[in-house]
Amino acid sequence: MEFIRKIRAGDVRSASQMIGMIEDGLPEARAVIKCLFPFTGRARIIGITGSPGVGKSTIVDGLIESIRKRGKSVGVLAVDPTSPFSGGAILGDRIRMQRHVGDPEVFIRSLATRGSLGGLAKAVGDAIHVLDAMGKEIILVETVGTGQQEVDIANHAHTVILVLVPGMGDEIQTIKAGIMEIADIFVINKADREGTRKLKMDITAMLEVSRACNGGWYPSITQIESISDPAVFEIGVEEVFFKIEDHYKQLLSTNFINERLRRKNMYELNAAISACIFEPLLEHLISSGKFASMMEVLMRRETDPYTLAEEIAKNYFKTCNFSIESDT
Amino acid sequence: MEFIRKIRAGDVRSASQMIGMIEDGLPEARAVIKCLFPFTGRARIIGITGSPGVGKSTIVDGLIESIRKRGKSVGVLAVDPTSPFSGGAILGDRIRMQRHVGDPEVFIRSLATRGSLGGLAKAVGDAIHVLDAMGKEIILVETVGTGQQEVDIANHAHTVILVLVPGMGDEIQTIKAGIMEIADIFVINKADREGTRKLKMDITAMLEVSRACNGGWYPSITQIESISDPAVFEIGVEEVFFKIEDHYKQLLSTNFINERLRRKNMYELNAAISACIFEPLLEHLISSGKFASMMEVLMRRETDPYTLAEEIAKNYFKTCNFSIESDT
Repeated sequence: MEFIRKIRAGDVRSASQMIGMIEDGLPEARAVIKCLFPFTGRARIIGITGSPGVGKSTIVDGLIESIRKRGKSVGVLAVDPTSPFSGGAILGDRIRMQRHVGDPEVFIRSLATRGSLGGLAKAVGDAIHVLDAMGKEIILVETVGTGQQEVDIANHAHTVILVLVPGMGDEIQTIKAGIMEIADIFVINKADREGTRKLKMDITAMLEVSRACNGGWYPSITQIESISDPAVFEIGVEEVFFKIEDHYKQLLSTNFINERLRRKNMYELNAAISACIFEPLLEHLISSGKFASMMEVLMRRETDPYTLAEEIAKNYFKTCNFSIESDT
Repeated sequence: MEFIRKIRAGDVRSASQMIGMIEDGLPEARAVIKCLFPFTGRARIIGITGSPGVGKSTIVDGLIESIRKRGKSVGVLAVDPTSPFSGGAILGDRIRMQRHVGDPEVFIRSLATRGSLGGLAKAVGDAIHVLDAMGKEIILVETVGTGQQEVDIANHAHTVILVLVPGMGDEIQTIKAGIMEIADIFVINKADREGTRKLKMDITAMLEVSRACNGGWYPSITQIESISDPAVFEIGVEEVFFKIEDHYKQLLSTNFINERLRRKNMYELNAAISACIFEPLLEHLISSGKFASMMEVLMRRETDPYTLAEEIAKNYFKTCNFSIESDT
C-alpha cells in the first residue's frame, strides 16, 4: 500500500494523517497498524512525565537537541489528555519546539482523543508504532497530568523520566499515583529554587522503601537549573541524556530489556482484545437496543449488573470453557 | 443469608468484612453484591474530590457533623489509590474523623486495592452498594489524587464537590484532568489565603467556556476560611451542606436525577461485563499457556496484536453477529 510505504519512508504528511486517524478511532487505522507492526520494535522509547508546569516541554526540546547532536533521528509524541467531557483541550506550549520544524530527522506531533481517557491510552501505543515504523531511532513521549496516564507510559517506554519541581507540593501526589515506582530517572527541574534539597531527600527516602529490584538499576536523580541561563540549562539536559544512555546500557547488559518488551507486548495484546472483542460487543448491545432494556430492568432493581453480565457471557460465548463465576 | 441480613441491619463488622472482600477481589464478594443490589439505590451519594492536601478529610468531617445534626445516617468511603506497583499505601489522615467512632449512625471505611487502579474503580461501586444496603441515607465518597479516579466518581455520585486551595498551582492540572466539568459544587478551602480572588475568577471563566447545560444547575462556588477558627470553618461547611441540598432539589425538580441514575447503571453494567467476560477470558488465556505463546509470536513480530485479538474473537464467540473489524 502506498500509504504504508510513505509512512515507512518517514513522510511527515502521511504519518500525521495516520495519527489523526488513530485519534479519531477510525477502523482503517487498525488495518494500517497491522501492516506497520512488523516494522516496529526498533526505536528506543523514552517516557517523560510529571505534573503540568514542571517544564517537561522545555526538557524535551533540550533532549531533541542532545539527540540530534549525535546524529540520531527523533520522534516526539506529546500526549494531551483531552477533557473526557468537553472534548476540547488544546495543547499550546509546543511553540518552543518549533525551531526543529525544518529538520527532516525530527517529527513532533501532539496526540489527543475525543472521548474517554481510556481511548487515549490505546491511541498512545498505536501512535508510537507509527513513529517507530517511520524509522525514528529515539521516540520521546511526553505525558501531561498525573494519574493513570503516567503509569501507562511504563508499559510503552524503555526508560521513564519523572520531572519534578521543588516546592510545588506535588511530591505526595506523585507518590500516591504510583509514579515514583515506575521512574528510572528523576529530574529535579528549576533546581536553583528553594526546596531542592528537601525534594531530593524525599525521593531518596521514597526509593529506599518502595523500589523493587529493577534489573540492578537504581534510579538516578538529576538536577537542572532554571532556564534563565541557557548554557547551564543545557548542561543539565545533557546530563539527563547521559543518564538515559546509562539506563539503556544497563537494560541491555542485564537482559532486563526483554522483561520490558514482554510487558509492552502484553499490554498491547490486552488493549487489542479490548478493541476487537469488548468494544464491538458493547456496540452490538447498544445498537440492538439490548443495552437499553437492560438499563430499564436495572433501574427497576429487577436484576443486578453481575447477573446481566453473566447472561451476556452465556449468549455470546461459544463454550464457557473458561469458568465464569456462578452464584453461591 | 445471615451475612446479607447483618449488612442490611447496618452491622459494622459484617460491612467492614464485606468491603475487605471487595478489596481483595474475592469472587464471593460478587455473590453478596447480587443479593444486596435490590436493597440499593436509596442513598444519596456525594463525591468529594481534589488534590492531596486541600483539606478534603476536614471538610468530610465537618459534613458528617452537618448531616448528623439533621438526624440522618451517614456512610463515608475514603478511596485510597494504592500504588499499583508497591501495593502498600496507607491512609493516615482519618484520625480527625475518630470523634464519630462511637456514633452507630456513622460508618467510616477507607478503600484500597492491591493491583491496578482499574480494580479500585470497580471496587468503589461495589463498596458504595454495601453502604447503601446498610441503610446509610447519605454516603460521602472522598477520592484522593487527581485523574481518572475523579472522573469516575461522577459515574457514582448524585453530587460532585471539588475542593481547591488558592495558590497551589493545581488549577490548570485540575482543568486538564477534566474534573472542572464534572463538579457541581466548587469549594475554595483556606480561602483566607492569598490568591482566592484569582482562583474564583479562574473557575468562573472556566465554567463560562466549558460548562454544558446540566439540568439547569449552574455550579456554585463556596469559600471556606481556614480551620484556625473552628466557628468560621463550621459556617463554611454548613454552607457547603446547603449547596448539596440545593443541588439535590434541583436534580429532583428537573428530573435530571434520572439522567444521573442511568449513567450510574450504565457504568456499573460496563464494569460487570468486564469482570464477568473480559477478565475470565484473559485468565483462561494465561492459565492455558495460550497467552505465553502469543507473547512469543509477538516478540518475533510474526503477527500483530490486532490479528491475535481477532483470532481470539473467532475462537471464543458463538457467532460474530456483532461485526469485528476485518483486514482492508
